[in-house]
Amino acid sequence: MTSENTARPGVRRLRADRARQVADVLRQQVLGGTYKDGALPHEEQLAQEFGESRNTVRQALDLLRTEGLVRRVPGSGTLVVADKVPHGLNRLQGLAETLHEHGEVVNEVRAFGPVRAPGPVARRLGLPDGADVVYVERLRRLNGLPLSLDLTYLAPDVGAALDAADLAHTDVFRLIEEVTGQPLGAADITLEAVNADAHSATVLEVPRGAALLMLERLTALADGRPVDLEYVRFRGDRLTMQGRLLRDLP
Amino acid sequence: MTSENTARPGVRRLRADRARQVADVLRQQVLGGTYKDGALPHEEQLAQEFGESRNTVRQALDLLRTEGLVRRVPGSGTLVVADKVPHGLNRLQGLAETLHEHGEVVNEVRAFGPVRAPGPVARRLGLPDGADVVYVERLRRLNGLPLSLDLTYLAPDVGAALDAADLAHTDVFRLIEEVTGQPLGAADITLEAVNADAHSATVLEVPRGAALLMLERLTALADGRPVDLEYVRFRGDRLTMQGRLLRDLP
Repeated sequence: MTSENTARPGVRRLRADRARQVADVLRQQVLGGTYKDGALPHEEQLAQEFGESRNTVRQALDLLRTEGLVRRVPGSGTLVVADKVPHGLNRLQGLAETLHEHGEVVNEVRAFGPVRAPGPVARRLGLPDGADVVYVERLRRLNGLPLSLDLTYLAPDVGAALDAADLAHTDVFRLIEEVTGQPLGAADITLEAVNADAHSATVLEVPRGAALLMLERLTALADGRPVDLEYVRFRGDRLTMQGRLLRDLP
Repeated sequence: MTSENTARPGVRRLRADRARQVADVLRQQVLGGTYKDGALPHEEQLAQEFGESRNTVRQALDLLRTEGLVRRVPGSGTLVVADKVPHGLNRLQGLAETLHEHGEVVNEVRAFGPVRAPGPVARRLGLPDGADVVYVERLRRLNGLPLSLDLTYLAPDVGAALDAADLAHTDVFRLIEEVTGQPLGAADITLEAVNADAHSATVLEVPRGAALLMLERLTALADGRPVDLEYVRFRGDRLTMQGRLLRDLP
């Protein structure tokens, strides 16, 4: 049986549907590092594996090429070019911490200093209206290439203590734990997919409109006090979020 | 103090950087339903709140408008048009289950039937090479509008039992629990942001290149047997993922 037989009676599956189906399986193989030598199997082999025509397989590979996951080299076939790193989604971790096996994270500090907190920021951090916070803006690179643009608001006492810290080479999470003398507790996160606006695209060195993984994260100390509100744009072509969900919460 | 003072000595902050900073705080207000009556505060009020110029605020609102979160109505100011729903990221839940407060999920079944599993699919489901699986493809709508396109491979016994099921109105998760007589256990997930290819864009009724939240999810029964491998494209403009991370795993 081939997937051509899977359509509901009377519904003809388009080649584009079948190509997407093949591409989705291949994309996880590519991201998971299955093709260790960097080359995908030949089209004919893939066609047989998926029970599809070579034209469908070619269209599937085109989808992956457009996404920047593979490139086609005449004579050599299809090579992996994706370089996505996995950000842990289960434990609350800083970027350098979660990616320590994947290379060196270096932060370009684009702004650092006290600002009057806008109302919504003050409220989320549990501060009175008009309170000062410390604003930190960082372009974060992994192995030299831009990975994320992070906008961070810190509780004033925590932020002030970071003035002399090595923000270029240290996660803010680690610095917060150092200066407060207590571990972080929990974070509330929201994840979205957004298209890069023109200016963010320039900063992150991606085409305008490129898909970004947008994270809003409010982090509290172990004692429950919220101290760190972040707005992070990750390059969609450089990072995945990986975790494990349970049907029943422990 | 204003955010203009936060730049490192010698670094002038561009208006585009300040506009992004304002937009990020406002976007969470919009998504969080803060502006109950649907109207954002006037530009002048926002300028004062954020300690920024009206031009910067206007540019921030332009960013939100481009994302489709707000629209500007001459005479009435800026109105919320975003309609993003939150998908829980902590507990393993089906779509209708996690969104039951937000409306009715109806699934258009685009394909259903047995297929020979491609090698990577068989391996992830713990099946021998060449085994059959059941393939299900659904366009899922919330309150009539496309929300996600789901490509699902089911273990053969589980899939076969779904042949007579009401796939249009029931989560596959719930059906799996019904036909196996045991609860689901855990799922391994990978989240990415990708740009919609032309054909997926057409199916999901978004512009080509629109940001999608892409989910790969391998779900196992409580006894540990993997039974459900899914590739899901969520419309970035219609859904967020929300959860809570702990510093120390329980």
